[in-house]
Amino acid sequence: MFSPLIEDLIRALRCLPGVGPKSAQRMAMYLLEKDRDAAGLLAATLELAVQKIGRCGLCRTLTEEDVCSLCNNSRRDEKSLCVVETPADVLAIEQAGNYHGRYFVLHGHLSPIDGVGPADLGIDLLERRLADEPVGELIIATNPTVEGEATAQFIAERARACGVAVSRIAHGVPIGGELEYIDGGTLAHAFNSRTAFYTGG
Amino acid sequence: MFSPLIEDLIRALRCLPGVGPKSAQRMAMYLLEKDRDAAGLLAATLELAVQKIGRCGLCRTLTEEDVCSLCNNSRRDEKSLCVVETPADVLAIEQAGNYHGRYFVLHGHLSPIDGVGPADLGIDLLERRLADEPVGELIIATNPTVEGEATAQFIAERARACGVAVSRIAHGVPIGGELEYIDGGTLAHAFNSRTAFYTGG
Repeated sequence: MFSPLIEDLIRALRCLPGVGPKSAQRMAMYLLEKDRDAAGLLAATLELAVQKIGRCGLCRTLTEEDVCSLCNNSRRDEKSLCVVETPADVLAIEQAGNYHGRYFVLHGHLSPIDGVGPADLGIDLLERRLADEPVGELIIATNPTVEGEATAQFIAERARACGVAVSRIAHGVPIGGELEYIDGGTLAHAFNSRTAFYTGG
Repeated sequence: MFSPLIEDLIRALRCLPGVGPKSAQRMAMYLLEKDRDAAGLLAATLELAVQKIGRCGLCRTLTEEDVCSLCNNSRRDEKSLCVVETPADVLAIEQAGNYHGRYFVLHGHLSPIDGVGPADLGIDLLERRLADEPVGELIIATNPTVEGEATAQFIAERARACGVAVSRIAHGVPIGGELEYIDGGTLAHAFNSRTAFYTGG
């Protein structure tokens, strides 16, 4: 119904997550009708980003520099190293604002069925950092999923072999959450991982 | 928090309609982490589309050709001409599938407050077509908004001056709609525009 090039554009826009045929069509029409300057800028920025953005040589997060600004920041505590699955997790933790150490981004989790092994997650680089840097504590913040837990276990054992203290972030009822609406798995975990208020006797 | 180029990409993605800061961040992360090929293709297609896509010389819809495929299709009924506000409206009518005439796309509606006058909507081109082509009926399918109605009135008067029959698509309760859920304005219009079943007497 549309001309071939418009159809191509609609198809290309569908590569974006959460964008179906109707949204893609609406986006294409909007860009072509209302905001060609923004469309041109998006095209140029996207091309540049695909070309230039790689991984930080230390923490593997996405950056166009050799070493990212977090790793380059000498005021960050080099005694703490936090392992996360994705660069978006780094952002989430930074926005929470109470962690001031360094990061290591796995870009995924162990998943033998998809052929993702330790080498794909840069575990060798992580071990090198644990050996070379004065890391006192490795905080594992992978997702509390089956794969995330398996990855956490694997990394914890490797870190123990390097003689580094390892911790896992707490999982349980979210702050501000109401018990009534929390799923059973989380609630069971919250009971099993309860902390002592005071020990009677 | 992210590197400058990633921030640029997130900002550029926000030009898309319906995309806020969180979605833009998710899109940027997805493209950079999971699908760089698609991102490159999107950048190239977007650039090409912005460069090449213009308006059809006859009906003003978006196309990369001089004359669009609908205007070039000799099997379309040249006696009917349908006026719509946007290229997406053409698609909607084509998908309904019972109109086989030609189109004229205004790319908006009359809006003196925004400085949109008849020249911006290509009314001169429309009048030329009404004079040159064997148009028997002009069907006005602008939106049933205040501006759309004003635009319809304006075009109807111009067409009448050209001696062409003019009609307006019907507005009322949508097929399959339930009266209970229809807004009062539509229902009032549906009563005023009722058609006779049979005339008693």
